[in-house]
Amino acid sequence: MTHERFSIGLIQLPGAADQEATLASHERAIREAAGRGAGIVCLQELFASPYFCKASDAERFNLAEPIPGPTIEHMQRLGKELGIVLIVPIFERRAAGVYHNSAAVLDADGTILGVYRKMHIPDDPLYYEKYYFTPGEIYQESEPRERGGFQTFDTKFGRIGVLICWDQWYPEAARITSLLGARVLFYPTAIGWHPAEKEVWGAAQVDAWRTIQRSHAIANGVYVATANRVGFEAEPGTGGLEFFGHSFICDPFGEVLTEAGTDPAVLVAECDPAHIEDTRRNWPFLRDRRVDAYGSILRRYLG
Amino acid sequence: MTHERFSIGLIQLPGAADQEATLASHERAIREAAGRGAGIVCLQELFASPYFCKASDAERFNLAEPIPGPTIEHMQRLGKELGIVLIVPIFERRAAGVYHNSAAVLDADGTILGVYRKMHIPDDPLYYEKYYFTPGEIYQESEPRERGGFQTFDTKFGRIGVLICWDQWYPEAARITSLLGARVLFYPTAIGWHPAEKEVWGAAQVDAWRTIQRSHAIANGVYVATANRVGFEAEPGTGGLEFFGHSFICDPFGEVLTEAGTDPAVLVAECDPAHIEDTRRNWPFLRDRRVDAYGSILRRYLG
Repeated sequence: MTHERFSIGLIQLPGAADQEATLASHERAIREAAGRGAGIVCLQELFASPYFCKASDAERFNLAEPIPGPTIEHMQRLGKELGIVLIVPIFERRAAGVYHNSAAVLDADGTILGVYRKMHIPDDPLYYEKYYFTPGEIYQESEPRERGGFQTFDTKFGRIGVLICWDQWYPEAARITSLLGARVLFYPTAIGWHPAEKEVWGAAQVDAWRTIQRSHAIANGVYVATANRVGFEAEPGTGGLEFFGHSFICDPFGEVLTEAGTDPAVLVAECDPAHIEDTRRNWPFLRDRRVDAYGSILRRYLG
Repeated sequence: MTHERFSIGLIQLPGAADQEATLASHERAIREAAGRGAGIVCLQELFASPYFCKASDAERFNLAEPIPGPTIEHMQRLGKELGIVLIVPIFERRAAGVYHNSAAVLDADGTILGVYRKMHIPDDPLYYEKYYFTPGEIYQESEPRERGGFQTFDTKFGRIGVLICWDQWYPEAARITSLLGARVLFYPTAIGWHPAEKEVWGAAQVDAWRTIQRSHAIANGVYVATANRVGFEAEPGTGGLEFFGHSFICDPFGEVLTEAGTDPAVLVAECDPAHIEDTRRNWPFLRDRRVDAYGSILRRYLG
């Protein structure tokens, strides 16, 4: 495992129905991130299309692709050309009736290192994800780790973890992925405001979302990098969703290194393995975990 | 369980060697909090003395008291007189050689509801707690819950949880205590700046400390209330510690309701069980926990 510094990039763009144009705009942004030195670039959740989960519609399963498939192959060629690692979140068709909200991790030579499949699936007004996605599974430790569950990927620039959107509210997911040795937790995301709620709750929602993710950096002594989409997406019969952006990268003590607003953005920041080492020495939380006393975390409720 | 609103109070004061004066200043502050409507009042960690863990010194075990003992009995009388619940963190002598960093929870009629014994014990320069305190234990579920481990207390104003200082960096502790039904997590605390570090790291340390605790409110949909001490405490041969205060109370979405600076302070804020219900309906994180996939959280490291 290298101890050299490396830079990471996040792409924050609107979703669009024209898949060719979407792929092109993301390719431009990825080239910009690479040009600014990013060795690992993460796209937003389900980047290749609008956020289609705003309604339950069987036709929309047509948006899914296998891994590898056309979108992933395009990104394999691009990442190999640029010599960068890519985290590519897409709607995955694994088999008839088995669809996942996934992120493929492509090494700098274009190899598919593996696929993370979203473990925590939301289901709320305009986020009807339980209709589309079966959750990632957990395999026994005796099975190959890459088959599912929380996992890490050994890239050219070190070991990273990927979690997706709703996963970001679960300290357990961040903890396990960090214990697996991730230096950075990437969170491809698609979260927005209900326009009717924005005025009253909008700022608090962004703040809670940023806070819970910064806390994962602090609790675990890892970098956290979150790529969210932006822009308003209509859905007939509803108020639509306004994706709130605010993608950010923070260090292992939760300090925000770079942060976007609600406009399209390309973020790049440097990560230093020595800073992880230093932070964990000075705030040695991992030393004192009470692994003997956490058993009831495996229960739904205890009251 | 009552659904009525209730108010909680936090006491933020300096520690002092004169125990009688310390008890008197805390009594005045408790009376102020009760006068402002607080039904549950929480004192800071090891409130009855200076933060003695700045050095390893066998003489300092003399500061410990049993529960009940003089300090707790004083607080039982005071709480009964005022009709309030008190969380009283003291250095507990449980037996010869068995000392805990504890918090007694006294109901509004003065009854001792139970004792929480700090589960995560730090050990860092000027915080030599592993020398003084044996950690709280975890009992099997078949044993009485009040014997140890993460637990809750059914007070006149509803079910609450207590964790102490270093526990605040562990999402597992907040999760389990919340799953046990706590509406509020109280964190009596004694955290400060090393004067030599304050200028460079001071603001980031307070921010990380506030952020991780706000994240427990968000992840679990509970109120969080943290009482820290203030003031400089010298220790021969060292730079001493400057306790940084910043006690605060936040709501189940992590919004700070009231917050102190670095001066002595009494904080009071209202808690509304309906707000917990509402927050958890709109952000239903507890619904989607992957209890099937968290088993490896019981391991020290997985990399």
